Parts: sequence; C-alpha cells; structure tokens
Amino acid sequence: MQDKSRFTIAVFPGDGIGSEITPITLEVINKACSKLDVSFDFKVLDAGAAYYAKHGESLPAEAMSVAKKADAILLACMGMPDIRYPDGREIAPQLELRETLDLYAGVRPVKTLKGLPLPLGDARAQALDFVLVRESTEGLFASRSSSKIIDNERAEDTQVITRKGSERVFNFACKLAQRRKELGFKGKVTCVDKANVLGSFFFFRQVFDEVTQAYKDIDADHIYVDAAALQLVRQPWMFDVMVTENMFGDILSDLGAGLMGGMGMAPSADIGDEHAVFQPCHGSAPDIVGQGKANPTAMFLSAAMMLDWLGSKHDVPAACDAAQRINRAVETAYEAGNLKPFEFGGQHGTDEIYNRIIDLL
Amino acid sequence: MQDKSRFTIAVFPGDGIGSEITPITLEVINKACSKLDVSFDFKVLDAGAAYYAKHGESLPAEAMSVAKKADAILLACMGMPDIRYPDGREIAPQLELRETLDLYAGVRPVKTLKGLPLPLGDARAQALDFVLVRESTEGLFASRSSSKIIDNERAEDTQVITRKGSERVFNFACKLAQRRKELGFKGKVTCVDKANVLGSFFFFRQVFDEVTQAYKDIDADHIYVDAAALQLVRQPWMFDVMVTENMFGDILSDLGAGLMGGMGMAPSADIGDEHAVFQPCHGSAPDIVGQGKANPTAMFLSAAMMLDWLGSKHDVPAACDAAQRINRAVETAYEAGNLKPFEFGGQHGTDEIYNRIIDLL
Ligand SMILES: CC(C)[C@H](C(=O)O)[C@@H](O)C(=O)O
Ligand SMILES: CC(C)[C@H](C(=O)O)[C@@H](O)C(=O)O
Repeated sequence: MQDKSRFTIAVFPGDGIGSEITPITLEVINKACSKLDVSFDFKVLDAGAAYYAKHGESLPAEAMSVAKKADAILLACMGMPDIRYPDGREIAPQLELRETLDLYAGVRPVKTLKGLPLPLGDARAQALDFVLVRESTEGLFASRSSSKIIDNERAEDTQVITRKGSERVFNFACKLAQRRKELGFKGKVTCVDKANVLGSFFFFRQVFDEVTQAYKDIDADHIYVDAAALQLVRQPWMFDVMVTENMFGDILSDLGAGLMGGMGMAPSADIGDEHAVFQPCHGSAPDIVGQGKANPTAMFLSAAMMLDWLGSKHDVPAACDAAQRINRAVETAYEAGNLKPFEFGGQHGTDEIYNRIIDLL
Repeated sequence: MQDKSRFTIAVFPGDGIGSEITPITLEVINKACSKLDVSFDFKVLDAGAAYYAKHGESLPAEAMSVAKKADAILLACMGMPDIRYPDGREIAPQLELRETLDLYAGVRPVKTLKGLPLPLGDARAQALDFVLVRESTEGLFASRSSSKIIDNERAEDTQVITRKGSERVFNFACKLAQRRKELGFKGKVTCVDKANVLGSFFFFRQVFDEVTQAYKDIDADHIYVDAAALQLVRQPWMFDVMVTENMFGDILSDLGAGLMGGMGMAPSADIGDEHAVFQPCHGSAPDIVGQGKANPTAMFLSAAMMLDWLGSKHDVPAACDAAQRINRAVETAYEAGNLKPFEFGGQHGTDEIYNRIIDLL
C-alpha cells in the first residue's frame, strides 16, 4: 500500500458461479467507497478447479505471490465435483491459502436478516447475531496431506492441536468478544470441544482456560460439541463468540449458515496476523451456473468484512464506514420482505439482488 | 434365555436422574407386556460416576459379566461433571460398553411427536422420521485411551477407520433402510463424511460405495458433513437413514435430538452382533436431581427400541407388539398438546408424564 487509503486486493473469481458474482461485488465495493477517501486496485487472478484441469495446478505461484503482496484477498468459490486430484480429494486452494498464509482465525458470523423466511420458529432466532471462530490451520484438517491408508484395510487421520495454534485463536476470539462488548453484546467466549472424551480436546480446553484468565472483562465458558449442535437448534441466541477446532468449526458454521437461511447469506473471513481471505461460505454451485440464479449476498457481506478489517488494521475509518454502508444496504434490501433469492423459494436472481442493493448505496 | 419369551435384562440406573426414571421404565415395560406372552427378569446393576467415587472403578467386573450374559442392557445415564478420571476425562462407562461388547451401530432415531412445540417452523419438520446410524467402535473416538500430549505443547488424537468396521455398519444401515422401505419410507442410505478433504473419509466413502452395490433395492448417496449439518436445519425431511463416523455421529445425533425438541425425547440403541445397549440420549442432569422434573420419555422410547430388537432377533412377535404399544402410548400422551415437560417450558414432571403414559397402556 503506497497511499494509506488505496488498497490492493487480490481477487479470485474461482470456479462455477464465481465469475457471476465477483464483478458485481467489485462494483458494490466501489460504489460503497465512491464518496469516501478510500479506493482499490483489484488484481483479478486465476485459480481453482477449472484452472487445474487446464494447467495441472490449482493455485499458480505467480497468483500466490500477487496474493501475498496484496492488502487483502477476496475469493468467490473454488472446486468442482468432477475435477479432483489423483487421490480423489477435491481441488480446494482455499485450504492451501489458509495453511500457507497462516490464516488461523476462520470468522463465520451468524447474523440473520429481517424479511426472509428462516428455519427456526422462535422469534429470538429471527434476530441472531453471534460469531463462530474456527481454528483454520490445524485440528483434524492438519492431516489432509498425510492421511494414511494401510493395505486398503485401515485409514488414519491425526488431529493435531498445538498450544501456539490454540493460544492465538483464543486470543483472537477474546479480542473479538471485547470489540463486540463495546457494541452492546454479551462479551462472552464459548469454547466448543470434546474434552470429556479426547485428550487433544482436554488440552485445547486447558489452553482456553489459561488464555481467558487474561481477559477479566470477558465471560468464558465451555460446551461439548454435541451439546453445541443441539443448542444451535434449540437456543442459538445463547451464544456470543464461539471458538472451536477446524473440523468442528466446519460443521457448526454450516449449521449456523442454515440458521441464516442458507449458504447464499453466509459470509466468512480467514484471518492471520499478516494476511486475510474473505469469501462467501457457499461453493461454486455448478448446478445453477449460467442461469442467473446465484445469490451474491454472501459475497457482498464478505466484501464488507474485508473493508472493516482493512479499515481497522490500517486505521482508515472510511473503509469501516464503507463496510457499514454495504451491511445496511443489504439489510434494507431484504427488510421489506419483497426480495427472495431462489434458495428461499423466491424468484430473485443475481441481477435483481445486485440492483436492489447497489441502488441503496 | 431359558424360555423363548422370558428375557433377562441388565439394568443400569447409573447416575443423577437415572434412579428417578429407571424404576418407572421397568413398570412401563411390564405393563406393555402384561397381556402378552413375554416377560422379564431385570437385574439391576450398579456402575457409573458415583460408583467410581466410592469404589475407584466405574464398571465393576461382576456387573459387566451379568450384562454380557443378559439378553439386552438397559441404561439410564452415567457421568457427573465433578467426578472424573485422574486425567480429567469424564466417567463414561457407556463408551466402555460400546467398545468391549463391540456395539458398532449407534442407532439414533429422529422421530418428532405431535403436540409439542418444535424448533423448526416448517410443517414438514413436525413430522420427521429418519434414523442416524453412528459407527460406535472406531473413528476419532478410537483414540480416547491413546491420546498423545507432547511436552504440554502439542496434543494428538488419531481417527481410525477400518474396512471391517465400516462394512459392518454400512450393512447394518442398508438392512435398516430395507426394513424401513417395507414400512413405506424412501429406502435410502446417506453416507456422511468429509471425503473431499481427509483420506480416511475418502476410504470410508469407497467402502460405502462397495457395500451398497449389493443392495439394489436401496438408494445410496453421500453428503459432506458440513452440508449435512446445514440440511438438518434446512430440510431434514430429505433424509431416511444416515450413516456416519463416531464423532460426526455424536454431533449430528444431538442436532437431531434438537429437532425433536431436546434430549428428553431422544432414545438410542448401541447394537452389535451379540449384545445391545438401549439408552436415552440425555445425561444424568445433576442440576434437576430430586426435583421430579426429569423427563422419562426418552428412556421409555429406548425401552421400546429394546423390545423391538429382542422381538426381531429372537422371533418373538409379542415383544415387537409391546414396543409398538409403548410407542403409541407415548405418541397419544403428547398428541393432545396438554402434556409439556419442563424443557419445553411446561410444568409436567416425571410422575405426570409416567402416569399419562402408563394409563394409556
Ligand atoms: C470446501 C471445503 C474444503 C471447505 C472446508 O471444509 O473448510 C469449506 O467447507 C469451508 O467451510 O470453507
Ligand atoms: C457421554 C458421551 C461420552 C457420549 C458420547 O460422546 O458418545 C454421549 O455424548 C453420547 O452421544 O452417547
């Protein structure tokens, strides 16, 4: 970044519907910032499953190097069910990004929007606002390139929890809870584990108890992962910030996306000390490619998370303001109850959703 | 079993509310069978966390030997938050039973009852009827007695998936789907895994594909565990029989219990080739001990699962009839909408629920 308020963004449209939702997301960012003292240099980069099919690699070194130099990375979606590595795993360069760039905090907000039909009946579930922080560099996922298959009879994957990896993600979660407390939230961090059965989770919980000692203004508690899954259905409003291991976070954050009405509404960020990737939770949705049905909302909200992160990190309040503008435009667009994406049984596609939101900016 | 229709049942009231719900469950079983040619010899046995606190062991050898000789094992709940093994893990002899008796199929039905307020708003979610089969002898849980903690810096647990362990649980799930198909259900088995990321799950899925080849009358499909968590919230009526790894099954079955309104309504069975344990999904609930608030429904339904299993295994139709009688009595008791356990915000405790149900038998 040369000038304090001009940011370089590495942009990966990726696969499938990625190319349908990415350009309009860049428009939304530009429009949100148009009257503010902040601007962007978007470097659009190629990577993903389709790229792998053509070039034999999913994330080319040049793209990676541009991404590393950028102030932030915005990614749409990657992976296609039929394009796989020879060992059968899916092409998922987003996992490589998390590992290579040490993006240890997977931030998955669960914030419901008014005006949409949501799965839970209780009125309190229509106004959810909590955040799940998923550790994103270790846990069971750490095993993905060293899985063992023995004689076609037995397969093993090893879950790894380190003190360092746990400390940093717990510190991140506690700071997030502090920031949220200032905004009027509970100021509580809940560690989700299976400490009653597995030693690695008992260790995880011990480190949590140590780290949270230093945050006297924050409440810290624990819940077993099975009970967490149950409470996310029964009374999700009990949570403020949840923090958990990589695999558990993957499962529970999709459950959280379900509470928001689906993946089309769920933004995410993978944040490290140096770098960060912002990405909607959904996949590349090959079944609806080219039909104009893709819901760009989650990517717009991911872009807002990016602006907020950039603004906070570099002390550029205008970027945080732009984030708020996008969030408010999205909320307002849905609030009236007459904007319904296809996955909600509605008829509103990419263009309609984009038009409504950009008009409000 | 000397006489074909007299069964010996090992009964573990266990900890906490266990002693409040066990005797009335035995009454329910006796009443359901009173006019049928089937009877029981209940051997009530001591084990659990309170027993451990007194005797230094949680599951005494004699109790185990009685349980092994019995025709079935009925367990209420075990474990107390403050009584733990020296390494911090909770006392959970139910895990030892699963391992020692090779109870590989954890059967967790998700069947909603009419007349109760349920979390999902959609009308279809008020009439759910699917079953989750949790592999219960390996997976990540297999690591629980060999967790590694290295220099207080790093902890590891290894997930183990074997061909043998997978084959038998997939066969179990397919046979269950066949049996359900005869009753009018879809006849579908869904394998829940994370084959896109982890080698052990890719192996799990391969074995699933091999095993299901032999069941031409059954549909077989796959879903990633994160997508499964989302769909359990968005459209759980899409499932018939789900089958998954131990840890995933633990999480998803509690989510399923949430869809039924809570653990107080959720029965389960852990079934092997020789033995089987039947147990409500809930814990020992020390917070409500002695208050008469414990909901015995899940244990009554677990007893019904036991009767059905005994009847099918030993070809004693009267036992299956008794199971149906209990299921119907429970359904009828709730149907009118004027029986509401405490966890539903109601005022009906153990006695009231028991009285209503026993009167209907
Ligand atoms: C695509 C997949 C590899 C990825 C994951 O499992 O992390 C996705 O589910 C996510 O949650 O970001
Ligand atoms: C009590 C606990 C060890 C147990 C498990 O994790 O299997 C329970 O949650 C269950 O689902 O039966």
